Amino acid sequence: MSLFLTLLQETPTAEVAQAVEQINGDMGMLWMLIAGILVFLMQAGFTLVESGMTRSKNAVNIAMKNLLDICVGSITFWLVGYSLMYGDTSNGWFFWSGLFQGEGADLFFQTMFAATTATIVSGAIAGRTKYTTYIIFSLIMTAVIYPISGGWQWQGEGWLTNLGFIDFAGSSIVHSVGGWAALVAAFMVGPRLGKYVDGKVIPIPGHNQILATLGVFILWFGWFGFNGGSQLAWGGADATGASTVVLITNLAAAAGGLGALVTTWIWYGKPNLAQTLNGCLAGLVSITAGCGNMTAGGAVLAGLIGGIIVVFSIEFIEKKLKIDDAIGAASVHGVAGAWGTLVIGLWGVDGDTAIGLFNGGGASQLGAQAIGVLAYAVWAVALSFIVLAILKATMGLRVTKEVEIEGLDISEHGSIAYPGKRQRDFEDK
Amino acid sequence: MSLFLTLLQETPTAEVAQAVEQINGDMGMLWMLIAGILVFLMQAGFTLVESGMTRSKNAVNIAMKNLLDICVGSITFWLVGYSLMYGDTSNGWFFWSGLFQGEGADLFFQTMFAATTATIVSGAIAGRTKYTTYIIFSLIMTAVIYPISGGWQWQGEGWLTNLGFIDFAGSSIVHSVGGWAALVAAFMVGPRLGKYVDGKVIPIPGHNQILATLGVFILWFGWFGFNGGSQLAWGGADATGASTVVLITNLAAAAGGLGALVTTWIWYGKPNLAQTLNGCLAGLVSITAGCGNMTAGGAVLAGLIGGIIVVFSIEFIEKKLKIDDAIGAASVHGVAGAWGTLVIGLWGVDGDTAIGLFNGGGASQLGAQAIGVLAYAVWAVALSFIVLAILKATMGLRVTKEVEIEGLDISEHGSIAYPGKRQRDFEDK
Amino acid sequence: MSLFLTLLQETPTAEVAQAVEQINGDMGMLWMLIAGILVFLMQAGFTLVESGMTRSKNAVNIAMKNLLDICVGSITFWLVGYSLMYGDTSNGWFFWSGLFQGEGADLFFQTMFAATTATIVSGAIAGRTKYTTYIIFSLIMTAVIYPISGGWQWQGEGWLTNLGFIDFAGSSIVHSVGGWAALVAAFMVGPRLGKYVDGKVIPIPGHNQILATLGVFILWFGWFGFNGGSQLAWGGADATGASTVVLITNLAAAAGGLGALVTTWIWYGKPNLAQTLNGCLAGLVSITAGCGNMTAGGAVLAGLIGGIIVVFSIEFIEKKLKIDDAIGAASVHGVAGAWGTLVIGLWGVDGDTAIGLFNGGGASQLGAQAIGVLAYAVWAVALSFIVLAILKATMGLRVTKEVEIEGLDISEHGSIAYPGKRQRDFEDK
Repeated sequence: MSLFLTLLQETPTAEVAQAVEQINGDMGMLWMLIAGILVFLMQAGFTLVESGMTRSKNAVNIAMKNLLDICVGSITFWLVGYSLMYGDTSNGWFFWSGLFQGEGADLFFQTMFAATTATIVSGAIAGRTKYTTYIIFSLIMTAVIYPISGGWQWQGEGWLTNLGFIDFAGSSIVHSVGGWAALVAAFMVGPRLGKYVDGKVIPIPGHNQILATLGVFILWFGWFGFNGGSQLAWGGADATGASTVVLITNLAAAAGGLGALVTTWIWYGKPNLAQTLNGCLAGLVSITAGCGNMTAGGAVLAGLIGGIIVVFSIEFIEKKLKIDDAIGAASVHGVAGAWGTLVIGLWGVDGDTAIGLFNGGGASQLGAQAIGVLAYAVWAVALSFIVLAILKATMGLRVTKEVEIEGLDISEHGSIAYPGKRQRDFEDK
Repeated sequence: MSLFLTLLQETPTAEVAQAVEQINGDMGMLWMLIAGILVFLMQAGFTLVESGMTRSKNAVNIAMKNLLDICVGSITFWLVGYSLMYGDTSNGWFFWSGLFQGEGADLFFQTMFAATTATIVSGAIAGRTKYTTYIIFSLIMTAVIYPISGGWQWQGEGWLTNLGFIDFAGSSIVHSVGGWAALVAAFMVGPRLGKYVDGKVIPIPGHNQILATLGVFILWFGWFGFNGGSQLAWGGADATGASTVVLITNLAAAAGGLGALVTTWIWYGKPNLAQTLNGCLAGLVSITAGCGNMTAGGAVLAGLIGGIIVVFSIEFIEKKLKIDDAIGAASVHGVAGAWGTLVIGLWGVDGDTAIGLFNGGGASQLGAQAIGVLAYAVWAVALSFIVLAILKATMGLRVTKEVEIEGLDISEHGSIAYPGKRQRDFEDK
Repeated sequence: MSLFLTLLQETPTAEVAQAVEQINGDMGMLWMLIAGILVFLMQAGFTLVESGMTRSKNAVNIAMKNLLDICVGSITFWLVGYSLMYGDTSNGWFFWSGLFQGEGADLFFQTMFAATTATIVSGAIAGRTKYTTYIIFSLIMTAVIYPISGGWQWQGEGWLTNLGFIDFAGSSIVHSVGGWAALVAAFMVGPRLGKYVDGKVIPIPGHNQILATLGVFILWFGWFGFNGGSQLAWGGADATGASTVVLITNLAAAAGGLGALVTTWIWYGKPNLAQTLNGCLAGLVSITAGCGNMTAGGAVLAGLIGGIIVVFSIEFIEKKLKIDDAIGAASVHGVAGAWGTLVIGLWGVDGDTAIGLFNGGGASQLGAQAIGVLAYAVWAVALSFIVLAILKATMGLRVTKEVEIEGLDISEHGSIAYPGKRQRDFEDK
């Protein structure tokens, strides 16, 4: 009798549990696939932001670089990148499982992250970089630089995971790696002609702020997949978890936009569009690491500060460091990425447990975050420097002065972005 | 024995039912989250429609207003809006549950609706409104005006719900509230310089109809989330229900576009792009209230008439009322919103039951719809008027004549949308 | 006792299986609905590609044609198209179930495919075709031409299905039908003025390559729904199946882009943007038939070759056939569509079974694919020719020389795309 009663309760329980597990897995796959599709569209967002914020004579080149990132990144990450990031054989620093690893929604989702990292660099060095050089750099970025350091945390048994480091969707792993590489690249390539004249910093405005605005909206849209999809699952706690991630991602972006808007109003006297756009992006980057470990209030504060920081960071890099980062990529992705990683150590939570220093969680999480920030900075700076130094010594990084003045579109690609009769006259050479 | 048999049937049944309920809840959350993400992108659509349909010298200002709506709306709706709309304490007219209510996919989805309501206003008053004034108006709209009247129906125990009023996804609650506020705002701010000269109505064409077209496609895309997500659930009848909502939303949009296309062909002699775009939007607004209570044929008819009405409504407001609504927002969202709400009382259905007057359902539903339409119109007009009157008396609504002629972008934001050398010459001042 | 044990195991098993089936159905509906929403946005992508790659004086006309396709297509496919394609009464060649068949997510998803087929034609004949003529052609395309031949394969009991023909998401059924119709239409309408002068081929560049790039990214984005949604289900093997479809769709697009990029670099001396964009699209078309029957490696190879073919095909049609296909639609959709259908017979797989000739599957699949390719080509060419010949004899296909020189936007639609003061001066007449 008691055996019967036990069977009666356990048989369906086991069967139902198995069915629920299968369905949760399928729902998780659906969410990851859709999230990956959203992240894909970020490539369009980057293209619009980068071309809109730079001059029209280089717009074709920007489009060709962004197309290249997704085309090359899709192939290389499938070929070797996934294996270098998620492979089984490991010493905590390097991973490998053979060529052509990864499949389905998981490989698709991760590929989009690799392509994003490469794309961050393309805007910073707009207007003077050789296309051939960029191809090789983009290829190495998606095939080697990004996946190796990504594995430190996201493989699950890397040295940063073991340290307790947290980077939910990649403030450091994706954005700061891209941002620091962008900074090094902008430094190595040198400023655009006419950017620094007789010690003065000359503004070089972009050619289409509406396209840049559309680009930011598309990036924001794709970021819901970027952060929300990083839950990597759906069903039960994962469903509410991913929903909260999307909610607070939006709150941080909004706060970042407002932070930059108000800052420029106070600082420049007028609320500035380009900086508000950067503020939204900085807000998004600032919550990317912590979107699984932050209250809504904490997310707003993280985004707000990210949006304020980015305004001053752009000024600092442009005017003090005199590095010509054409669209502020190093500030938006590098500096805000570091901030977004550190903030978990300041007011992060783990479920109901406080882990941030300021909410009583002690200094250990902040320490782990700082080590991670530093590790990704050192890695990205060192590797980018080495690759670019070799490229500089061999094929050169920069187009000739004549090509730069005429615009890269004609000499590098043989066409212009707006081929109406007198369209090219618009552009300052 | 019989106890055993009962247990045998009930135990798994209960367990399976519980699992199904949990999974349906998770699927519903997934659909709402994705729908909310789609609705978010409507902000980009509004930016493109509004900037494309107005002059380039005010395009930065348009972008800054649309960014502000989502940034401010996200914060205020989280802070107080959700509570004012869905709070527990209630007399049927006002609701409240304390600050920072709402969470996850639900708050995210509802936030996007609040931001949409505010955004509808921004286009109507393009080209002459102070940015500071707009900020305060947008803030009050998302924090107070929209949520309070929204609660009358969507909180579930409001006075309009109790009356039997139907507004599935917000023809009245979102669109007409935004549209009537836009009408009042356009009236209070006054027409753009050069719009009415010596009793003549001067057309002021926009600067980029391709961006406007892209904007309408993006809005249409987002509307599938707006209407479909308003099912608020997925699984079983909710799955087929939400699918039908999306299907008939598309049919109504298509019919609205065709309605306007043919109407302009007959009326102006040529099929007009701007009005066809408005027709698609009017078709969408016309089915937003009834998308859960309409046959496919009824949806096509509702959208078709909406697309025809909007052409004449725009003419009427522009030429007879002499109110300068720069992009026709009052007609697209207000007039079509009222129509879309009323049409449920004409040929709406509730499952297999006819509730519309013309299909034999009697006049009671039409009465409820009319009361709702009136209530939202009175509320939106009154509140907008009061807020704008106070703003007019204190800080002023309008920029100076010099600023308006030069374009708001330079004096309000210190930059222009298309900073190529001679780009600014394009624009009529 | 044994009866009890049996009941104990079977009752929950049946109940669980039923619940799982219901939930899988609901998840499948969710995926199809979202996929359909993604496919909808392809209309925006086509608008941007077609207007960006042609001159600004015809951009309003392009927008009006693309709007018409989705508006007319949504109505006609609901009215008769779905029934002609998926109806029950059948002889294997024609299907019918009465008017207004289809519902919910299924009808919505299929409608978007019909609209896509029509849209493919609009770009090829840009700049000289009467709008009235186009309306009728688009209507017949979505109501009759596409659904009838689509039924041959996708109804499930058509003659091509019975032959073993495979076309998972429509390389032939959608893209080649659209592409061959575009070729016939471009031939029948004749080249644009100034395209062929004294035996020379004059390039007529588009007016906005950034919009074209954005358009391709949007098409790529929508294509994940186009191919992935064609799984028509989610859950278990369908979940991993659809995920793999999306993954290899992306790989083929990337390979197609790289194929065209490298080919133009070798062929023209410089990596060309317009052709790289066409290469990405050709890669997508090349995997559309085989995305359920291809390894990742096979998809890369299919896409790569598609991207190479398209460059030479565009040259061949333009310079040898002297048919003025304004955006290369016949090459991208027709030629790559045929290639994508045939490649299944070369290195396709069916699960673990090789079905392609080159991987040991024999010639029978290749034969079936060739018959299908031929059938769709003959059907599309014949029907398009008949319809256009009748239209030519009755109302005429082409605008007057004066209208063409001035641009279709003014005479056909009474407005221009960029109404800034001197904007129209940009354009070569």
